[in-house]
Amino acid sequence: MYGLGTAVETKQVEGQIRQPVDLRSDTVTKPTDAMREAMASAEVGDDVYGEDPTVNRLEARAAEVFGREAALFVPTGSMGNQIAIRLHTQHGQEVICEARSHVLDWEMAMMAAFSGCQARAVAAERGILTWEHIKPAIGAKIYYRAQTGLICLENSHNMAGGTVTPVEVMREIWDGAKDARLPVHLDGARVFNAATALGVSVAELTEGFDTVMFCLSKGLGAPVGSMLVGSGEAIEQARMHRKALGGGMRQAGVLAAAGLIALEEMPAVLTADHANARMLAGTVARFKSAEIDLGAVQTNIVIFTLVGNGDAAAFVGRLKARGVLASATGPHAVRFVTHHDVTLRDCERAAGVVAEELEGLG
Amino acid sequence: MYGLGTAVETKQVEGQIRQPVDLRSDTVTKPTDAMREAMASAEVGDDVYGEDPTVNRLEARAAEVFGREAALFVPTGSMGNQIAIRLHTQHGQEVICEARSHVLDWEMAMMAAFSGCQARAVAAERGILTWEHIKPAIGAKIYYRAQTGLICLENSHNMAGGTVTPVEVMREIWDGAKDARLPVHLDGARVFNAATALGVSVAELTEGFDTVMFCLSKGLGAPVGSMLVGSGEAIEQARMHRKALGGGMRQAGVLAAAGLIALEEMPAVLTADHANARMLAGTVARFKSAEIDLGAVQTNIVIFTLVGNGDAAAFVGRLKARGVLASATGPHAVRFVTHHDVTLRDCERAAGVVAEELEGLG
Amino acid sequence: MYGLGTAVETKQVEGQIRQPVDLRSDTVTKPTDAMREAMASAEVGDDVYGEDPTVNRLEARAAEVFGREAALFVPTGSMGNQIAIRLHTQHGQEVICEARSHVLDWEMAMMAAFSGCQARAVAAERGILTWEHIKPAIGAKIYYRAQTGLICLENSHNMAGGTVTPVEVMREIWDGAKDARLPVHLDGARVFNAATALGVSVAELTEGFDTVMFCLSKGLGAPVGSMLVGSGEAIEQARMHRKALGGGMRQAGVLAAAGLIALEEMPAVLTADHANARMLAGTVARFKSAEIDLGAVQTNIVIFTLVGNGDAAAFVGRLKARGVLASATGPHAVRFVTHHDVTLRDCERAAGVVAEELEGLG
Amino acid sequence: MYGLGTAVETKQVEGQIRQPVDLRSDTVTKPTDAMREAMASAEVGDDVYGEDPTVNRLEARAAEVFGREAALFVPTGSMGNQIAIRLHTQHGQEVICEARSHVLDWEMAMMAAFSGCQARAVAAERGILTWEHIKPAIGAKIYYRAQTGLICLENSHNMAGGTVTPVEVMREIWDGAKDARLPVHLDGARVFNAATALGVSVAELTEGFDTVMFCLSKGLGAPVGSMLVGSGEAIEQARMHRKALGGGMRQAGVLAAAGLIALEEMPAVLTADHANARMLAGTVARFKSAEIDLGAVQTNIVIFTLVGNGDAAAFVGRLKARGVLASATGPHAVRFVTHHDVTLRDCERAAGVVAEELEGLG
Repeated sequence: MYGLGTAVETKQVEGQIRQPVDLRSDTVTKPTDAMREAMASAEVGDDVYGEDPTVNRLEARAAEVFGREAALFVPTGSMGNQIAIRLHTQHGQEVICEARSHVLDWEMAMMAAFSGCQARAVAAERGILTWEHIKPAIGAKIYYRAQTGLICLENSHNMAGGTVTPVEVMREIWDGAKDARLPVHLDGARVFNAATALGVSVAELTEGFDTVMFCLSKGLGAPVGSMLVGSGEAIEQARMHRKALGGGMRQAGVLAAAGLIALEEMPAVLTADHANARMLAGTVARFKSAEIDLGAVQTNIVIFTLVGNGDAAAFVGRLKARGVLASATGPHAVRFVTHHDVTLRDCERAAGVVAEELEGLG
Repeated sequence: MYGLGTAVETKQVEGQIRQPVDLRSDTVTKPTDAMREAMASAEVGDDVYGEDPTVNRLEARAAEVFGREAALFVPTGSMGNQIAIRLHTQHGQEVICEARSHVLDWEMAMMAAFSGCQARAVAAERGILTWEHIKPAIGAKIYYRAQTGLICLENSHNMAGGTVTPVEVMREIWDGAKDARLPVHLDGARVFNAATALGVSVAELTEGFDTVMFCLSKGLGAPVGSMLVGSGEAIEQARMHRKALGGGMRQAGVLAAAGLIALEEMPAVLTADHANARMLAGTVARFKSAEIDLGAVQTNIVIFTLVGNGDAAAFVGRLKARGVLASATGPHAVRFVTHHDVTLRDCERAAGVVAEELEGLG
Repeated sequence: MYGLGTAVETKQVEGQIRQPVDLRSDTVTKPTDAMREAMASAEVGDDVYGEDPTVNRLEARAAEVFGREAALFVPTGSMGNQIAIRLHTQHGQEVICEARSHVLDWEMAMMAAFSGCQARAVAAERGILTWEHIKPAIGAKIYYRAQTGLICLENSHNMAGGTVTPVEVMREIWDGAKDARLPVHLDGARVFNAATALGVSVAELTEGFDTVMFCLSKGLGAPVGSMLVGSGEAIEQARMHRKALGGGMRQAGVLAAAGLIALEEMPAVLTADHANARMLAGTVARFKSAEIDLGAVQTNIVIFTLVGNGDAAAFVGRLKARGVLASATGPHAVRFVTHHDVTLRDCERAAGVVAEELEGLG
Repeated sequence: MYGLGTAVETKQVEGQIRQPVDLRSDTVTKPTDAMREAMASAEVGDDVYGEDPTVNRLEARAAEVFGREAALFVPTGSMGNQIAIRLHTQHGQEVICEARSHVLDWEMAMMAAFSGCQARAVAAERGILTWEHIKPAIGAKIYYRAQTGLICLENSHNMAGGTVTPVEVMREIWDGAKDARLPVHLDGARVFNAATALGVSVAELTEGFDTVMFCLSKGLGAPVGSMLVGSGEAIEQARMHRKALGGGMRQAGVLAAAGLIALEEMPAVLTADHANARMLAGTVARFKSAEIDLGAVQTNIVIFTLVGNGDAAAFVGRLKARGVLASATGPHAVRFVTHHDVTLRDCERAAGVVAEELEGLG
């Protein structure tokens, strides 16, 4: 048994109190000072009645950035994804998704429990689904077989190691889905990381999706919040499902204020996170005790495997004892995620510890 | 068709810009300056990993105030109620609730859509369910009939006009439910209003419930957030269901910081809200054009009916034009809700307008 | 606690073995000899592939009798109703139905568990819903309230005592529903009883419904089976949901063969059942120990109440000991249902026993 | 797009009317004369009340044959499987099953739509899951991940070509599941085929399962019906879920009568079906235009692939034109299923046609 979250405490390392370098996930990012100030002074109202001016501004701005008609603020990325799945499907349908995708593995089976849909999981190298993968997974049009209701992609792909699907691969899927009259949703929790890696705008990278969810938290640093963008009609439906899921918050402008800063200012910082990830990956690659696909380190995530069935949980435990927090994402798999709250210097310190531990395994 | 929310704008009234007196709902309360400061300086962490110290403090304190083992912070009261319904029931069961209860009328049929449970609605005078109402509504123990899974009460009762169920009535229900081996949940969105009206502690007023949801927003003024309290085991389950519903926020401490102030300092202000409600109700009672059950005005809610099938929506529209916001809660029913953001003086201004409009109807 | 089913055994009554008179429900009817022969010689095929000629004939004939495009054979009336609810609604909607209707009380909360819909129960005298009842129960068109998805009626109404809704009341509902753009389904488990009582054809009595379910079992005597009729498109959807619910039987022609006889020949026998019911009701009405609404005895069901809070279960037990089987449908309510397998003579015997027992209570 | 069912008609072949040889599925078997007689003379009662003596006999006998406490008659195998999934799981859990299993591919996503469970699909060679496959698919015990609720196997495995999992492989799974405290259900639609192939009793082959579903239709020839066997408590729950799904039929004894004959007399005929399948497979294996895994032809199913991306639907169409009905189970995959209603002679005729058509492709 393994999990992503291991308790974190401030450690006394080499005789002095030092904050650990937290590479478990970019979900641990804390609000910047600017965000805190914005939260304190946010103009707010009752968002259930559509009267929170800060939420309204954030939603308008997110729609603009993604070139869409409308956007909706939601407390979490999971809620955004599950709203999208719900609004595109009928109970008793299938959702085509990659075999290690977040909607399948980390959203509490809500595709089934809330939307009544069965995942049609397709494994793809580096998590990059193409139309060639998707087409044969579409259910035959016979009445006694569950019909496909949605294609759901993830870019960048978390569990595949932050890998990025290029625009042209997406485009083929958009075209194929259109022919098959199937909606396509993007779990873009880290779509700004993907866009940064590809050097394209998020609008271009997502233009063929019916809906896109992206997170203001994670790499963009907001304390709470994600957005769902799409057509006016889709977002109207989404608002209803958000209320159903208990996501209709009242004076949510306090969160939206931080979200606006995340959206406007933080995408620019991701380049540094990606560089830090490459540096860490490079360190890992030097050791025979670890196996890493360097070509898969495209954004802010580094996943590697301990050779000889090395115990990932134990390895993560040793790193933790030395002030470096990582995740065991499989029995032998270790994951680092870089983000705004770990500096190059932090990452260098972490790299040093990792090197010593990998050396020790050799 | 009628609804609770009518768009609000700052009105130019009698030649000067003035904020309307917003009596639509206590959901419109805005965070106090103390709350804003607390949010700006909150110590935060990743609450999905259980590492947000401010959330942890709020949860510990809420459990303490209600005399329970544990508590869980949730973004909305609806989410708190629906988590409770989910954790106490199985799909295909029935939930006994009052015929105008919030869980039945204002939570998007999620009792059915998420928990697969059918409401067994029982109408009670002033919304006060007693064991005499509940007992015959329990399903017979035969395999081909849906079984009762939960009894769900609401105190104070919103749509019945903020009415309060006394401790002794609750006690009989707790005893009966225990004999029938049925769990009991309290939708205590406004349980501090009920406790204030009864002059008892919330701990005493809720001690026999398996779970209690209460709101930090509404009368207590926090911008976002509610709590679910119960046994350690129940809250452990609740945490899982919160994640499923997309309520597992990350640095939620920014909200919890305001919630702590709401919990500690704001219950004391409710007495004034209740007095304001009584004053408004007294005004209404003077006019033949309105029918009001003064005995039902026990907390911060005033509901009255326009006699002669008077059109509530039109009446609300006229009040709005004069800077007083109210809700039409039925074709002929009008509701005022007092709260921290409307002062005695605001209420007096509103009472004046209401008096003139009711006079006009006569 | 009380239920409809009490174990039945052949009793030795007054010194001789005699079959009890089974008035618990018309669900106990056994196939006639003609039905048995038809079953034995039925031409069959694989109905999942649409190749069972007998099923196909039954479906075509049912559609014809009800003046519809198509029909679907289902193993039970409950499945037929739940398929209809599913196909007309979306999860998270409301279904307006009478407060004692079968879909609400006797179908295992599947409206919620399978269709994710909340019942909006409306109590009506003798179970006869009118447009005046229904109109105010339709949900307001606001995004944060569950929307009405379906109106579901029951004719004749089982738990109200087999009462019948006349065509003109139906017509007003059909018109109102059309204006409100709401589909209307009929639980017509006993619609042939209703049509017989009104002296109209089932086609006329049901013409404004989007879908109608009726039972071949119950009064019509088939061992197993009900039909759902509607438009070609509705029945196409229904076929899919039938497969989902596990109702896609293979060589179902063996059942359909009996169903064809039930449909063609058995409606004519209902007149006698109704006369027997009136006779039983007349007997009950003679005694002060029972309260009966004779005007409600319109078809084959007789419900009466024991005065002075008489114990219905005990009363039913005494009848059973004397060879008359009835149901306790409430703490003080007793129900008789006449049907093809109890003759006038059986009913007279039962009436004698009932008279003596009611006399004894006086 | 392809499907299992292609319309069947009596064909005029080589100048004379001849019934086609229907190798599409063993679901097409028709009741024997003995079954028809038994249906006509069956003693029946109301099975919802537990009073149908023939159903009761069948349930008792099925429990005995499988060495279990209890059994339940259900109209279809799909209903039996879905009842089992529902009774072992909670909404929001995962069900581990093989990637081509019937519960995943051919039961209308009801695992999700009715039980709210996500399939955790694991691909295994010849469809034979082992504990080595299953163990890593069990969800980590962390609150923010969906938990595994059930392991579901299929023996013989339909879409893998009727392959059989041996007792010792099962045993390892039973042991592992017990350690992991996970229930195990068998989709034993064709478990008598598996037992026949292995030369063991169905009781021995299934003893470690919590529940087993097996079909009286298919190879055993009953027109309608399957059984779910398990502990008394499990079957009590199952009875409730059967009612919910609309499977609580009334005088079901007419079907059970045929089912008793299927259970007692028909397992003995399966040996011949298996021999016929091997003969057909041997024919296919002679041609380069087809690829077949002869070792996988263990029971009554033959699946082969047309080499060079040959079009299975077109091939099946050509066979049909010549009086041989088969299924295209993939773009290039063809399936034959032998059964009681096709004799050795029929199969020889089919083999001749198949040989000529495969020759033609070469």
